[in-house]
Amino acid sequence: MSTNPSWIFRSYPSAMPSVENWVLEDRPVPEAADGELLVKTLWLSVDPYMRGRISPAKNYAAGFKLGDLMRGGGIGEVVASESPDFKPGDIVMSDYSGWQPFSAIPAASAKRVTITDAPVQSALSYLGMPGLTAYFALLKTANPKAGETVLISAASGAVGQIAGQIAGIKGLDPVAVAGSDEKLEWCRELGYRTGVNHRSSADLVRDVAAACPKGVDVFIDNTAGPIHDAAMLNLNAFGRVVVVGTIALADRFDQPDIGLRHLRRTLITRARIEGFLLDDHEAEYASAIADLLSWYKAGLLRTREDILEGIETVPHAFIRMLKGENFGKQLVKL
Amino acid sequence: MSTNPSWIFRSYPSAMPSVENWVLEDRPVPEAADGELLVKTLWLSVDPYMRGRISPAKNYAAGFKLGDLMRGGGIGEVVASESPDFKPGDIVMSDYSGWQPFSAIPAASAKRVTITDAPVQSALSYLGMPGLTAYFALLKTANPKAGETVLISAASGAVGQIAGQIAGIKGLDPVAVAGSDEKLEWCRELGYRTGVNHRSSADLVRDVAAACPKGVDVFIDNTAGPIHDAAMLNLNAFGRVVVVGTIALADRFDQPDIGLRHLRRTLITRARIEGFLLDDHEAEYASAIADLLSWYKAGLLRTREDILEGIETVPHAFIRMLKGENFGKQLVKL
Repeated sequence: MSTNPSWIFRSYPSAMPSVENWVLEDRPVPEAADGELLVKTLWLSVDPYMRGRISPAKNYAAGFKLGDLMRGGGIGEVVASESPDFKPGDIVMSDYSGWQPFSAIPAASAKRVTITDAPVQSALSYLGMPGLTAYFALLKTANPKAGETVLISAASGAVGQIAGQIAGIKGLDPVAVAGSDEKLEWCRELGYRTGVNHRSSADLVRDVAAACPKGVDVFIDNTAGPIHDAAMLNLNAFGRVVVVGTIALADRFDQPDIGLRHLRRTLITRARIEGFLLDDHEAEYASAIADLLSWYKAGLLRTREDILEGIETVPHAFIRMLKGENFGKQLVKL
Repeated sequence: MSTNPSWIFRSYPSAMPSVENWVLEDRPVPEAADGELLVKTLWLSVDPYMRGRISPAKNYAAGFKLGDLMRGGGIGEVVASESPDFKPGDIVMSDYSGWQPFSAIPAASAKRVTITDAPVQSALSYLGMPGLTAYFALLKTANPKAGETVLISAASGAVGQIAGQIAGIKGLDPVAVAGSDEKLEWCRELGYRTGVNHRSSADLVRDVAAACPKGVDVFIDNTAGPIHDAAMLNLNAFGRVVVVGTIALADRFDQPDIGLRHLRRTLITRARIEGFLLDDHEAEYASAIADLLSWYKAGLLRTREDILEGIETVPHAFIRMLKGENFGKQLVKL
């Protein structure tokens, strides 16, 4: 029996997670029970939503318990199938992939990856959850009109890089907020008109105002925190704020978030602030992926990946991403 | 020439306004210039939005300058008309009525009051701005489904008492938040199922939870402040929060509002938080007033007024209302 080094959740982080919150244990390669697939992991995805899953606080989905095998988005090759819907050799994607080289997953959680025009791992980025998030958050929830200024935080990240390019395709005026000048340079290459470096800015409110001389019509908020304030204080009448992520709170996830409240501003601008979860849009995934793939094939969607290699790197990749040290979609290749 | 005691704005309040922010000066009775009406004031309305107009902070409408005559909602009888659209004896309503017994107002700001089935001052309450605010904030912006729980702050106030009754008429489950047990008793008489006294509550979050055992689907927020927090922390998935007023901030209007931020909660619940200004709904006023009047005539809309008498009482009435000392729609009768 081959060994199967697996990341086990060991302790709840009280602030920014550290590698010590997990332990790499050697586990046997599992067998596929009835209705399951045994999958050889090819790619693992680390995503901001997982910060909420390692918190004892109530969330929109059940969190991990101490001692649980960590699971998240991944792509693998079916080695053994106890489901009539899959056969060995199939490439499948699942949000229930273990952080381990061989993983038993419910067949019901698996989708066959049939992409032939793009790398297989795009099913974890621009043709998967982050790309779909960008698509629906911008086009459906924010519902922008041509020419409107769209401010996007974490603009070079997995969601932001796609949101900015979709904004360009749709005739909007995308403005980036990112954590380094190098990331902003990449954002401009993608079609963002300009951007603000939130780490070097001495006055985010002023710098967002300068970057958005006509004000902010739509804000795709991947971060919360001070960038949220700068957007709210520059929001135009009837502005739309889509709350997609709160990664700026990753180091104080279970503490009250105390800061400026924007209720007067919300009233005065008649802003609409709306929370976003991708799952609500599942009925429209197929047509959205068709759009994303057609833009990709037309050369309109460029993307950047940040890849670590080997099962031992997974928590490191996750923490890099939470800290914004990644540059592009963070993946782990096995 | 008769005298015309008029309230002049003297100083910006830094906290809760006090009578010293105005001075009562004897002014001559004005003459109506071309396009104006000279109106004998019958009723004046004091409303929360006027707190924003006596602040130097930017607002959705221009504020008063020091030395200005105070103006607000009022009803009066036309004494002299320099407009072809009005004649002496007409009863008119205007948001530009001076805090004075005789006021010159632009004819363009005046609407003829043609109500015959209700008291004339209802054009300042349930058949006017507060009633229309309740109508559109609840039925259009929040867009509730039958059976949903609707939490309403300042529930016995000018907007709240109408919102609660409309909620009942529409088959919703209205729950009040008000500042005294006496007000809550009145709310129950109006059809609110139950209520929470925010002044005596030791734990607003818990008490709102107890009053809303199925959670809060819609929150009509007339106050901001701690009631907002209690609503957000009890908000159901896909909850709607309509930010109608921020009267709990009346004593610190120009200071940053620091407190709990609810971005995680917004994301997790996919809440929609939306600012509301009545002016945006002007095209639909006529049909809304027809609805409100028909409910009133059918005995489905009961209202309570809190009336002070005499021009010298106007700032007192305004401050009473800001402090929540009024019980029902605050008016001044001349």
